[in-house]
Amino acid sequence: MIWEQKLIELPPYPRGFHPITNHILSQGPDLKNCEVGLLHLFLQHTSASLAINENADPDVRGDLERHFNVMVPENAPYYAHTTEGPDDMPAHIKSVLIGASLTVPISNGQMALGTWQGIYLGEHRDHADGRRIVATLQGRW
Amino acid sequence: MIWEQKLIELPPYPRGFHPITNHILSQGPDLKNCEVGLLHLFLQHTSASLAINENADPDVRGDLERHFNVMVPENAPYYAHTTEGPDDMPAHIKSVLIGASLTVPISNGQMALGTWQGIYLGEHRDHADGRRIVATLQGRW
Amino acid sequence: MIWEQKLIELPPYPRGFHPITNHILSQGPDLKNCEVGLLHLFLQHTSASLAINENADPDVRGDLERHFNVMVPENAPYYAHTTEGPDDMPAHIKSVLIGASLTVPISNGQMALGTWQGIYLGEHRDHADGRRIVATLQGRW
Repeated sequence: MIWEQKLIELPPYPRGFHPITNHILSQGPDLKNCEVGLLHLFLQHTSASLAINENADPDVRGDLERHFNVMVPENAPYYAHTTEGPDDMPAHIKSVLIGASLTVPISNGQMALGTWQGIYLGEHRDHADGRRIVATLQGRW
Repeated sequence: MIWEQKLIELPPYPRGFHPITNHILSQGPDLKNCEVGLLHLFLQHTSASLAINENADPDVRGDLERHFNVMVPENAPYYAHTTEGPDDMPAHIKSVLIGASLTVPISNGQMALGTWQGIYLGEHRDHADGRRIVATLQGRW
Repeated sequence: MIWEQKLIELPPYPRGFHPITNHILSQGPDLKNCEVGLLHLFLQHTSASLAINENADPDVRGDLERHFNVMVPENAPYYAHTTEGPDDMPAHIKSVLIGASLTVPISNGQMALGTWQGIYLGEHRDHADGRRIVATLQGRW
């Protein structure tokens, strides 16, 4: 049985959705000896999120950012948590909507993603520091 | 220890929310010998989603579809990813909002769903082909 | 290997978002001997949800409740599932949006939450009874 846990440190990203599959492969647990398993990714933050979506056309990322900004606007009149700036409370709501963790199946030493799937960081703050992901691999040889 | 992975192939569905619990039970890993475990379901697509919700009144499924169409409209003026049709970019956004994977606890050989819970496919394209789910069961006898 | 499953019974909560990390620690599986693992939490209900978010400023919880009530309003003209009261169909939609389960990594006998992260129940009904969570711990000593 495999149980391995690693901390992945992402560099700072600007607000928006960013492909991070490569960071997960380079810093996360080594998948190649895992025949069947699951990789769990957990973002230790409350104003960013993890998502899986199309990684072919970069316009998808831009449209996601634009749509979430309409659906969760800044400066809504009913926000009471405003001291950390107008981008902060929308960031918390986006994090709850999208979620801060993902579980990806492992098959024959690789993530069993569909053809068009990639892993995104949703960075919802304007000026965030780097983000941390706890990556836990379990499975069998 | 149990580690088993199967590919579930769903037939094509029209746009909307559809109960798929029976497909998971018939094509997925055999649960009956698993005393305690987890079943992970991973949809390998970026324009559909997996959700758990009420499976008693079919009106719930219709209302979900109608509400998501209001919350994530077609033809928003800020969409740049438009070449695959007006239903495509909303489908990607709905997939990010609802998510493409689920984890369900297994107790005494069965999914430990609540009384009213069923598993749905959210099909967000107008004319999609069948969808694939990677189902991974782990647990103990 | 550790495989342990417990039922957590939450007391009734009023509509809104409520920190429940303490209930999980007191009623859930004992984490202290788990060096590396995952804790899976599964809410057996279709009109409430589980989320991770900031647990420092209570205003965040109020803002979440207020925003979700705007994004998923009561009495939308297209709701057909209305017999259980105006709060019921929005509750189902919120449950699909936020999700009814969470997976949290375990490191050295503790949940590896970020500094500001706590676990919330999103109670979306006006007058709900207590809610049940199936908590499954797996990992290695």
